[in-house]
Amino acid sequence: MKITLHSPLDMHLHLRDGKMMQNIARCSSKYFAGGIIMPNLVPPITCIEDVKAYKKRIQKAINGDKFEPYMTLFFKNDYNYKFLKEAKKYIKAIKLYPSGITTNSEGGVSSFETEDLKETLEAMSELELPLLVHGETNGFVLDREKEFGLFYEKIAKSFPKLKIIMEHITDKNSVKLLDRFDNLYATITLHHLLITLDDVVGGLLKPHLFCKPIAKKEEDKEFLLEVALNAHPKVMFGSDSAPHPQSSKESCGCAAGVFSAPVILPALCDLFEKHNKLENLQNFISNNARKIYNIKPIKKDIILEKKEFLVPEKYGEVIPMFAGERLNWSYYESTCS
Amino acid sequence: MKITLHSPLDMHLHLRDGKMMQNIARCSSKYFAGGIIMPNLVPPITCIEDVKAYKKRIQKAINGDKFEPYMTLFFKNDYNYKFLKEAKKYIKAIKLYPSGITTNSEGGVSSFETEDLKETLEAMSELELPLLVHGETNGFVLDREKEFGLFYEKIAKSFPKLKIIMEHITDKNSVKLLDRFDNLYATITLHHLLITLDDVVGGLLKPHLFCKPIAKKEEDKEFLLEVALNAHPKVMFGSDSAPHPQSSKESCGCAAGVFSAPVILPALCDLFEKHNKLENLQNFISNNARKIYNIKPIKKDIILEKKEFLVPEKYGEVIPMFAGERLNWSYYESTCS
Repeated sequence: MKITLHSPLDMHLHLRDGKMMQNIARCSSKYFAGGIIMPNLVPPITCIEDVKAYKKRIQKAINGDKFEPYMTLFFKNDYNYKFLKEAKKYIKAIKLYPSGITTNSEGGVSSFETEDLKETLEAMSELELPLLVHGETNGFVLDREKEFGLFYEKIAKSFPKLKIIMEHITDKNSVKLLDRFDNLYATITLHHLLITLDDVVGGLLKPHLFCKPIAKKEEDKEFLLEVALNAHPKVMFGSDSAPHPQSSKESCGCAAGVFSAPVILPALCDLFEKHNKLENLQNFISNNARKIYNIKPIKKDIILEKKEFLVPEKYGEVIPMFAGERLNWSYYESTCS
Repeated sequence: MKITLHSPLDMHLHLRDGKMMQNIARCSSKYFAGGIIMPNLVPPITCIEDVKAYKKRIQKAINGDKFEPYMTLFFKNDYNYKFLKEAKKYIKAIKLYPSGITTNSEGGVSSFETEDLKETLEAMSELELPLLVHGETNGFVLDREKEFGLFYEKIAKSFPKLKIIMEHITDKNSVKLLDRFDNLYATITLHHLLITLDDVVGGLLKPHLFCKPIAKKEEDKEFLLEVALNAHPKVMFGSDSAPHPQSSKESCGCAAGVFSAPVILPALCDLFEKHNKLENLQNFISNNARKIYNIKPIKKDIILEKKEFLVPEKYGEVIPMFAGERLNWSYYESTCS
């Protein structure tokens, strides 16, 4: 049994930089036609020169794979119309991080007053540049995304022409917001469709499943599954695949991030097949994103076959999701480049 | 400034066995007059011979320190009156673990039907042997202790003469139960008075603060502080100090347990002083336990002084709580043996 996915897209991807990027970039570029590349490097990507230089480094790292890195800027509230108009030639979106909320987000936003964000967000609305948001407050860890919902409501109302993408949603409240505001969209990761907080801290502690936002309750997972498996038209796949060296994950202060890139498509085939929803995977993994972002990705067919896939224990220094475990679907070898 | 604590008691302590016990036992025996020793070895302590042999090994490990190891058995529902009457010469309590709920608890209880526990619990009531309980269900990790509350209510009602000690409580619901049932008591750890889930998974992941039951919300912590700082007469200190080698804590499947033994009394002085409750520490750390367990501990005065204490980074292979940090109180050297 085989399935062909046409131009799969990963709408939330961390490729990092330097040696780490060399190690992991092709785990995405071999199997996807493109991806939205996160700008939270050290320092973050905040100018056009840096966007161009980072894109070049990515293109070198993926070594000729047919893969389009959709570049982004790290949100700053002093970006004006003129700058953004020029930037739009090189980027597909702008990513907003609340200050200090996740890996390399220290330079993020600390005021969420509409007035402080107005100039930049109005320019983005006019230029049709989507705003991608890591939506968490600094409240109690399980309530952060829900609490941030108030901000989503506020900007959705204040900037009705702005396309706002709630990144890596994990909470049922975020799912509900999708149908309440025309201009709210969402990405969902692989891991948040599979795990709850119990998988992270309920038995032995699993640092390789520790991520931000942290996985929530079974009920939240059910809400995410409902919209992902049915390929809700406002929902896209975005892995948030975020590699950290094993030494940093298995340490006394473990960084947040799940490295899912190498297992995404086989694991999604498993999941969608299990729920008899394989026919919706194409929309979830590509078509919805094309419409929401108004993009035409590189033509690239990825074939998967129902054949056991033993997930490698390591990619360089990085432990992937499902390390050493067996999945029911694997890449049909010759198709991937 | 100095404070003298008379015969401090740690009413919930893991001393482990073998090389680990050699390494960590004196972190408790130097500073405490006695402690309730947990029986969850591999295999667990379920017969009198094992109690006696384990006590001997402990006495050897503490190397002459004035410290009374109060021994316990691992609860089995086939303990009968005759066995328990004999056992009572050697033990102070029996510890019940739901099966599989924490480290080395696989042989624990899987049926909580009153009928299945009746013979053993009635014998314990008659013999005045307290039942110590790790109170968690296998539900969602943050709800486990609250859900277990129904079982506490059931046994408290069914066995009104049985002294039931809710071990290492973490949830406000457990605190409320104390005043609802005459025969429910509790131990509280140091770490649950200081941390919430945010400290474990809210920033970087902190495996050395990962424990079972997992730390809950700020509101729960406030309830615990209220009864601890005021030395509620049904509440005792029990550290649940539980050493694991660094290699097991900083790994892809990290074991639950905080190793607090070396820092307990200085950290409690800090905490009680901060809340202007130092005068209640003696009751919390010793007197309440004496009354609840009806024990007369070894006479042993521990003096602490308000002087910076730089917590060591490591005790052998084990990372302690507050490793490398500074506390405001320290042991007044010559008093501890």
